[in-house]
Amino acid sequence: MSKLESLLKELDNLSNVVVVKPIEWSNGKLKWLNVSQLPWKEEYIESSDINRLAQAIKNLEIRGAPAIGVAAAMGVAMAAYNSPNDVNELIKNVENAIQTLSKTRPTAYNLFWALDKMRKQLQLSINDPVEKIKETLLYTALEIQLEDIKNNIKIGEIGERFIEDGDTVLTHCNTGSLATAGYGTALGVIRTAWLKGKDIRVIATETRPLLQGARLTAWELKKYGIPFKLITDNMAGYVFSKNEVDKVFVGADRILLSGHVINKIGTYTLAVLAKHHNIPFYAVAPTSTIDPSTKAEDVIIEMRNPEEVLTILGKVRIAPEDTEVLNPAFDMTPPELVSGIITEKGIAESNFTVELKKLIMF
Amino acid sequence: MSKLESLLKELDNLSNVVVVKPIEWSNGKLKWLNVSQLPWKEEYIESSDINRLAQAIKNLEIRGAPAIGVAAAMGVAMAAYNSPNDVNELIKNVENAIQTLSKTRPTAYNLFWALDKMRKQLQLSINDPVEKIKETLLYTALEIQLEDIKNNIKIGEIGERFIEDGDTVLTHCNTGSLATAGYGTALGVIRTAWLKGKDIRVIATETRPLLQGARLTAWELKKYGIPFKLITDNMAGYVFSKNEVDKVFVGADRILLSGHVINKIGTYTLAVLAKHHNIPFYAVAPTSTIDPSTKAEDVIIEMRNPEEVLTILGKVRIAPEDTEVLNPAFDMTPPELVSGIITEKGIAESNFTVELKKLIMF
Repeated sequence: MSKLESLLKELDNLSNVVVVKPIEWSNGKLKWLNVSQLPWKEEYIESSDINRLAQAIKNLEIRGAPAIGVAAAMGVAMAAYNSPNDVNELIKNVENAIQTLSKTRPTAYNLFWALDKMRKQLQLSINDPVEKIKETLLYTALEIQLEDIKNNIKIGEIGERFIEDGDTVLTHCNTGSLATAGYGTALGVIRTAWLKGKDIRVIATETRPLLQGARLTAWELKKYGIPFKLITDNMAGYVFSKNEVDKVFVGADRILLSGHVINKIGTYTLAVLAKHHNIPFYAVAPTSTIDPSTKAEDVIIEMRNPEEVLTILGKVRIAPEDTEVLNPAFDMTPPELVSGIITEKGIAESNFTVELKKLIMF
Repeated sequence: MSKLESLLKELDNLSNVVVVKPIEWSNGKLKWLNVSQLPWKEEYIESSDINRLAQAIKNLEIRGAPAIGVAAAMGVAMAAYNSPNDVNELIKNVENAIQTLSKTRPTAYNLFWALDKMRKQLQLSINDPVEKIKETLLYTALEIQLEDIKNNIKIGEIGERFIEDGDTVLTHCNTGSLATAGYGTALGVIRTAWLKGKDIRVIATETRPLLQGARLTAWELKKYGIPFKLITDNMAGYVFSKNEVDKVFVGADRILLSGHVINKIGTYTLAVLAKHHNIPFYAVAPTSTIDPSTKAEDVIIEMRNPEEVLTILGKVRIAPEDTEVLNPAFDMTPPELVSGIITEKGIAESNFTVELKKLIMF
């Protein structure tokens, strides 16, 4: 069995824990679950077109920083795989794929981490025969996918220790299978605690504007059988004030060495509420989310289309015509509001810069 | 000119400041703007049926604590007005109206304040001829309407001193003309500052589940020409963190002597954010909102239909079937998060119990 075959086999073997794999390699194409259509429709899309994939990431058919990273790596592998057997053509196609994919979303660090990894792999393999380069890039992309799942499972093991029997955990947006290669970060921690038999309850925020909490987290929690209640975002303060929240677990789209956590809009509000109520607040992400060089003041927060605020998923208009809006897709939570950052390599809990550096080094 | 005629004339004369009167007396009927249909449709409903009016309050065709109070008083007057000329029949109809209306919404204090005022007026007039009783009750209801507008204007004058030239004011839900007899509480303060020529900007939260901010506040601010931006509720933390908020003004559905402010769900979250960022947070309401007897632990927070969370205004379902939700319509902000309570009689800023007592006494 080749290295590639055994990797594919290992991916298959994970299907007992991986209930949903949102992105899969499919003979030179990518196949993804269009999560923007959940919970109404389970629609799978297959394409070998890099522009279609870029559009899928922009439109949030594929979303969640780890899932975006995996999809981008696979997109680059796909561009190589479908190239003619000419090394210059292959390089051109791979570079074009990297360029196209890097312009989809500015905030998710895993996207740039994955593209960088693919580019480095190409450079390392540049003198190999073209067929070999193709195989190497595909192997690297599938390895990123496999590693993401394995890292999520490790994160679950590490993080679930912070959840006690009887806890109610508040989570935001979707950080489950649908946001990763197939297990989840913050929702993975919750799932692991549940699988270990802990009696837990979840409060899920709906997460306007695009309602990933209501649409996706509710869909996943139902699939796993974990008891939960859905709230609108502005009910968060109410549940804290009623002492109904024991822990907060959120994901991250980018984590700075300073400990700043960039995550779905609304995260910062939850962090302030958690601090005010003396409730632990954890960010959960693989180390591929840690950005070792950007400073807090230089982080680009993606501003998205006003229509996302002015309508509900394009289906109902909720405000008068020509209403001006703000639509930042993310916000930044400073380290003083973060109790811990949970990764597959361990936890950073205090001196973030030193601890996060250690985590990405070893 | 009779007392009643001159009161009606005074109401008419306010039309220069009152752009929208959501409830009006119309020859033995009530006519109201169905605000649940805004901004899509300006639908007016006329009815002399007390059950239809109660339904309108339950369904939020009429909403906002002061507007509910005015509608309830007018509903009682209407029940009397349309009674046969028999005092026992009239008393029966008035009592039935009070009972029916008191069961519509449990949290808005102005509702109970207005019904109590009408019942007392009936008791005072009980020995008058039936025609005279009818006129007295109508006069009392219209006086409540007129006083609410005049009080709003006074509140605007008192409150606008807290807004400085260049300020950006964050407000929640709708507290404007549509929530009162016709001018507004928190939004009235903002409007007065604007009418005085202050260069201000507003940030309006959309206010899930029923989107009063997106639908109604945006509609009003457009009418008044005040520049504003609409945000989803979970963007509040973001705008605070960017130092984009100078003051917060919200309304109130009930204010306790302890200084606890019960208001639209989401208010407490904003108060915590304001405190964390050292931004003044004001509650604005007429003294008819002050409940002199209920204690914080005894306040009934109305829990509304789960469908309000599971759908967007009944038009789009956003979560999987059978999802469990929480749907409290209000939350309670404790006095330590409140910088001031602005009423038509003045401001309570520190020792709330003493100061609020003074305000309702004098």
